[in-house]
Amino acid sequence: MASDVVCGATRSLASSLIPLRGQHQQSAAPCADELRASSFLHHSFRSTALVSQGVAARGRAAPRVRCVAEPIQKEAVRTRVKRNVNLGKLQAGYLFPEIARRRNAHLAQNPDARIISLGIGDTTEPIPKVIAEAMEAAARGLSTLEGYSGYGAEQGQGALRGALASTFYKGLGVKDSEIFVSDGAKCDISRLQLMFGPALSVAVQDPSYPAYVDSSVMLGQTGEYDTGVQQYRNIVYMPCTPQNNFFPDLSATPRTDVIFFCSPNNPTGNTASRAQLEELVAFARKNGSIIVYDSAYAIYVEDDSPKSIYEIPGAREVAIETGSFSKYAGFTGVRLGWTVVPDELQYEDGFPVIRDFNRVMCTCFNGASNIAQAGGLACLSPEGLAAMQELVAFYKENTRMLRATFTELGFSTYGGVNAPYVWVQFPGRSSWDVFEEILTKADIVTTPGSGFGPGGEGFVRASAFGHRKNIVEAIDRLKKLYGK
Amino acid sequence: MASDVVCGATRSLASSLIPLRGQHQQSAAPCADELRASSFLHHSFRSTALVSQGVAARGRAAPRVRCVAEPIQKEAVRTRVKRNVNLGKLQAGYLFPEIARRRNAHLAQNPDARIISLGIGDTTEPIPKVIAEAMEAAARGLSTLEGYSGYGAEQGQGALRGALASTFYKGLGVKDSEIFVSDGAKCDISRLQLMFGPALSVAVQDPSYPAYVDSSVMLGQTGEYDTGVQQYRNIVYMPCTPQNNFFPDLSATPRTDVIFFCSPNNPTGNTASRAQLEELVAFARKNGSIIVYDSAYAIYVEDDSPKSIYEIPGAREVAIETGSFSKYAGFTGVRLGWTVVPDELQYEDGFPVIRDFNRVMCTCFNGASNIAQAGGLACLSPEGLAAMQELVAFYKENTRMLRATFTELGFSTYGGVNAPYVWVQFPGRSSWDVFEEILTKADIVTTPGSGFGPGGEGFVRASAFGHRKNIVEAIDRLKKLYGK
Repeated sequence: MASDVVCGATRSLASSLIPLRGQHQQSAAPCADELRASSFLHHSFRSTALVSQGVAARGRAAPRVRCVAEPIQKEAVRTRVKRNVNLGKLQAGYLFPEIARRRNAHLAQNPDARIISLGIGDTTEPIPKVIAEAMEAAARGLSTLEGYSGYGAEQGQGALRGALASTFYKGLGVKDSEIFVSDGAKCDISRLQLMFGPALSVAVQDPSYPAYVDSSVMLGQTGEYDTGVQQYRNIVYMPCTPQNNFFPDLSATPRTDVIFFCSPNNPTGNTASRAQLEELVAFARKNGSIIVYDSAYAIYVEDDSPKSIYEIPGAREVAIETGSFSKYAGFTGVRLGWTVVPDELQYEDGFPVIRDFNRVMCTCFNGASNIAQAGGLACLSPEGLAAMQELVAFYKENTRMLRATFTELGFSTYGGVNAPYVWVQFPGRSSWDVFEEILTKADIVTTPGSGFGPGGEGFVRASAFGHRKNIVEAIDRLKKLYGK
Repeated sequence: MASDVVCGATRSLASSLIPLRGQHQQSAAPCADELRASSFLHHSFRSTALVSQGVAARGRAAPRVRCVAEPIQKEAVRTRVKRNVNLGKLQAGYLFPEIARRRNAHLAQNPDARIISLGIGDTTEPIPKVIAEAMEAAARGLSTLEGYSGYGAEQGQGALRGALASTFYKGLGVKDSEIFVSDGAKCDISRLQLMFGPALSVAVQDPSYPAYVDSSVMLGQTGEYDTGVQQYRNIVYMPCTPQNNFFPDLSATPRTDVIFFCSPNNPTGNTASRAQLEELVAFARKNGSIIVYDSAYAIYVEDDSPKSIYEIPGAREVAIETGSFSKYAGFTGVRLGWTVVPDELQYEDGFPVIRDFNRVMCTCFNGASNIAQAGGLACLSPEGLAAMQELVAFYKENTRMLRATFTELGFSTYGGVNAPYVWVQFPGRSSWDVFEEILTKADIVTTPGSGFGPGGEGFVRASAFGHRKNIVEAIDRLKKLYGK
């Protein structure tokens, strides 16, 4: 890795300095290299704090190394802690912060650009009043003796667990006690991974939401990144392309312990049919695998595709399901989701998975915000459900408009019926190139398909979350950019 | 592990059943064993859900195994996924749910008992109006175009990071960008552990807040639990007892990669002095260790003990600090905390730790609730700070009363000056026995010291979070129970 930055040390601290390895240990004048190293690390070394905290006063003078370029004394100590090798395997930044970085860079160069985001999939419309009012009341209540609550159950409030079971899992046999309320599906994915541990093998749809793969890498379930195929070793990537109607060829898919499966899918916007999910469940049962079914967009389903994996007979013994209020009620900032772990789901040794997940939730989590939970409960009231449906219908109209536009412009366009995402093909082109083209020429942020895995190369994802006037304007700009 | 529960299977599902190993595979009439197994697992097997989902209709008849005792057909499939061995090492339940379980059991047997909790350390007083109103306004704002916000930065809102830096770290050189806002210190502990990974060695104070040890076990940093010494192998337990004034003998402490250190301490209520923390930082610098400094109770400090590890010169290169609004403003249910990772903190190879923590936050977390963050910002306004101080003063008076009571009753009593916890010694007795005694005879929930590690054996922790009238009543009952 990069060299360290050492320019000087006072005598008092020098005695406790860890010897530095590498070139600087012997160097008497490392300043030039140091500055480069510092720049490489994007890491400005700060000695002033130490000085101001009295270190200098306790033992100044006799610096070991004198700098010409920088008169201020510098001191550095590295720990002897080895970096987690699994974090070292991760490539670049997490996708969405990287998009934000490029967006901001574009804005810095073009301060007048009126950027429209069809990118990260962030909700834009206000939370329905009936739901916001419930959170308002909960917040107000916290300042009263009657309304105050402290630590809740790590698994969530009983009323909310019950309402989730009776609303989204009615008739599917999901018990309140099998539902764990959380601060979001993404957070639950990493808690599930923490539960699974480093020894398990994992399969993902390709392309897929990056949190599955990245958390898998972090936990040590994978090998190194293979830049040739742009995949991590020891992950099974299940190609989901127009050729296979976005459903993996399971006959050619090796067994893994865990299968992450998202439907309606992020990013492709496609939805698995009942027959396909029956095939998936049968595959998991045959292989003794655990499906982690991400149903974060289930409410967008308008045809008879299943909204829950538990609609499929036999799923309770092989599937975990995670869900979220983010795209249902605009809770992306409020943070509320849930995960279902059925009692029947067992490890090889017969131990119930739910007990381990409960332990993880109790040890690594402290419950979702009580205010957010009050909002979740309001979402599931008759008025809340109606309001959510109205909100979803609004985004779905955006989706329809975007899909029609890309189709009209001659692109092969997928998804966008049961999901708020349109998946647009740019044959033979790099996703990041198209991303840059749309960003720089139309001031529109999309998401490059390759950010979701190599199977997304040649696509961009357009998210339909946006104010209507922005969607309309984005459509105008896209027509200017790509119209004949 | 326990045997599986298989009583019957319809033909249609039998074809996808994983062959079960062990006795039941060959058994023709395993029902009696099955019932025992089922009971052992506390795991009631459910076949009705499957039946109601149409499985039976698709291929009923010809059960493989016929039960005499239970006429309802049962079907079971185990996955072939191996349980995470690290979760298997964990002993019993996480401490606080276990206390809740015993409390509820007592209440079930004594429905009229008016239980007072000095147990879990859950705040009881309403959130100051100025803070709750800010959250109320934020919630209301979410239903408007101007006030709506979706995904925030995973690291927290800029204004809140800035306010934390200028309020709690004024003059200590902590930059806004080094502060990561989160849903609580406990959650951050496990994210830090996820970052550290399985290969690191860890030291904890003994006794200590259980999340450090339990998350360490989960990540695979430890060996098995040794029931003889009641410690996990490969963790360094640093005894903190009245004999060493609750500060570990560092000269006898082996080097570890990470040192979890909580001051003011949970559970002992003791606070490390400036000289002690200087010794700790020097020890970490000498050994190249990372201190994870839990400062969740810093606001309770009333003498000149440091409130932040960064008051100690040289700490920025060896220390992470985590903090929380839970015990400052009654945010135990609202969920808001933060973690500081200084730019200077580096792994052995020079890689900045902050970059890995940032990656973990971006991949495994999605920001604290925007409503909670609005509350946090209000906490740090002049009115909010004054209100927090008033709230803390209230709990500190409770603490003083409890401490005086136990002292008056003749117990050796520790802590309770700079922290809301009183640490009471019951020489020669088991903590859980004392816990049960106080629960069953006085209807008061405490926390058994041994729940915090073997070094807590013979102590109980009394938390001072409670309504004044309950504290007064608890004192009455304690005097009746233990008075001469």
